[in-house]
Amino acid sequence: MEKKERAKQAGPGAGKGGPVGPLFLVGLGLCDEQDVSARSIELLRTCTGLFAESYTNLMREGTLRRLEEKIGRKIKPLGREEVESEKIILDACSLGPTALLVPGDPMTATTHSSLITAAKEKGIEAHILHASSIFTAAPGAAGLQIYKMGKTATITYWRKNYEPAAFIDIVAENLARGAHTLCLLDIDPEMGCMKPSQALEIMEKAQEKRKKENPALAPVLSPATPLFVLWHVGWPDQKIWAGKKEHYPYSGRPQKEPGSGPAASAPSREPDGPAVILIAGKMHFAEEENWKSLSR
Amino acid sequence: MEKKERAKQAGPGAGKGGPVGPLFLVGLGLCDEQDVSARSIELLRTCTGLFAESYTNLMREGTLRRLEEKIGRKIKPLGREEVESEKIILDACSLGPTALLVPGDPMTATTHSSLITAAKEKGIEAHILHASSIFTAAPGAAGLQIYKMGKTATITYWRKNYEPAAFIDIVAENLARGAHTLCLLDIDPEMGCMKPSQALEIMEKAQEKRKKENPALAPVLSPATPLFVLWHVGWPDQKIWAGKKEHYPYSGRPQKEPGSGPAASAPSREPDGPAVILIAGKMHFAEEENWKSLSR
Repeated sequence: MEKKERAKQAGPGAGKGGPVGPLFLVGLGLCDEQDVSARSIELLRTCTGLFAESYTNLMREGTLRRLEEKIGRKIKPLGREEVESEKIILDACSLGPTALLVPGDPMTATTHSSLITAAKEKGIEAHILHASSIFTAAPGAAGLQIYKMGKTATITYWRKNYEPAAFIDIVAENLARGAHTLCLLDIDPEMGCMKPSQALEIMEKAQEKRKKENPALAPVLSPATPLFVLWHVGWPDQKIWAGKKEHYPYSGRPQKEPGSGPAASAPSREPDGPAVILIAGKMHFAEEENWKSLSR
Repeated sequence: MEKKERAKQAGPGAGKGGPVGPLFLVGLGLCDEQDVSARSIELLRTCTGLFAESYTNLMREGTLRRLEEKIGRKIKPLGREEVESEKIILDACSLGPTALLVPGDPMTATTHSSLITAAKEKGIEAHILHASSIFTAAPGAAGLQIYKMGKTATITYWRKNYEPAAFIDIVAENLARGAHTLCLLDIDPEMGCMKPSQALEIMEKAQEKRKKENPALAPVLSPATPLFVLWHVGWPDQKIWAGKKEHYPYSGRPQKEPGSGPAASAPSREPDGPAVILIAGKMHFAEEENWKSLSR
């Protein structure tokens, strides 16, 4: 159907800025098109506007193409600025039901909340279709209790004159309360997915910066801090490393000798792709047992 | 295929306590069988043992029946004790691939972590298939930033000589840090889903108890505390109320006159079914705008 015809069908206000919609924010889940719910697949088939953002997370290669085949429709990928300006998406809403596909559970990326507000202000209804998310999947895969997760820390790449370190205070506060911390690692269009070894290095630097600003403060992390490092959570090739921070095998320091302790069986190089770090707070007996069993 | 034949196919140890499996914990998501991922549906069709627990959350009426039709297989519902004893499920693993279906994202219920540990101890591989969860969906629907969620509070029914009040300290700690709190409300086989009005009443009592034990402590909640109350999150009939605590329209106090403020348009009685309360901490401008727009 041509755009003009669709606009006619959608009613007199359509295509002229009158409210039509609705707008759907549809979660893509953790891995690929196999994580999109049946409810969402049905809905996507009825939308006149179909967009996807892929900058808040990375999907597996070919996800959108296979999803297009599944729903028999084209999906237009949008860059960060195109999503944040809201114009393209809201203009499409004036022609009929429109969906923005978002990796994970769609509202965990804060920018999408303002899109919903903007739609509502125009008189366009907005709905969310949920999917699996790193926020519950990572603690679940590590065997940490979701109830004991504190605020989330986001670790971004340090650049010249841009060295954000506020995340270390979040970790410190969580640890003081015995809470666990999910650390999300930067995904940069140029630098790619931050590796856990890079994140741990930035954590060290942030800790030093904090100490410098306030020498009275105790260090946040110690060599013995229990960590979980997870790659490709919810993907068929998910990988977990668990152990004390000092034993993380890809930290630039010399590799451990085989058989000398945790992670001796780890692959020779640090895996690529999306990863997160979980910093364990005060672990319950069952959580600690699980950490130990993964450490072996 | 008969059990004996399956056991034969599965290898010499099968049916005699030897490790077979794998065990899959499969998320049912927020609402019904339409939230189960395509990846999980494919997998369920290959399992020789299929179980479901339905005590950590409530699914929509008929969910399991419709899921059975979709996969062409029978699913056996298990009570809490049957799941927690682990025997039925681990015995089934000795005959082949076995799945336990769990509402939401499966590992958010802490009891299932010990099932995975027990499976691994028997040499049975365990995998998680993730799905949508109240932990990300509720803040998302309320427009609260997931990064600012503190520890989760669970409010259970108070009974004679059993008045758990530790949750109020969690709320207090979160508020002191500016963090938001997700309050999960009890689901009891006899009492049913706790209503938000009941939860708010228990919150008041817990606050009084806390004050009594330590008179120096400031009250945790005030009449002006901003709340979000959400029913049926992720269901097609999801409902949200937002406003100050004192304006919650179903608190047993006389109902507000129509037109006298927030929630005047609310239905005459408190909705039934699963509900959660979000207690907002320090709201960002966009979060507050959203709260205000929902309050109108």
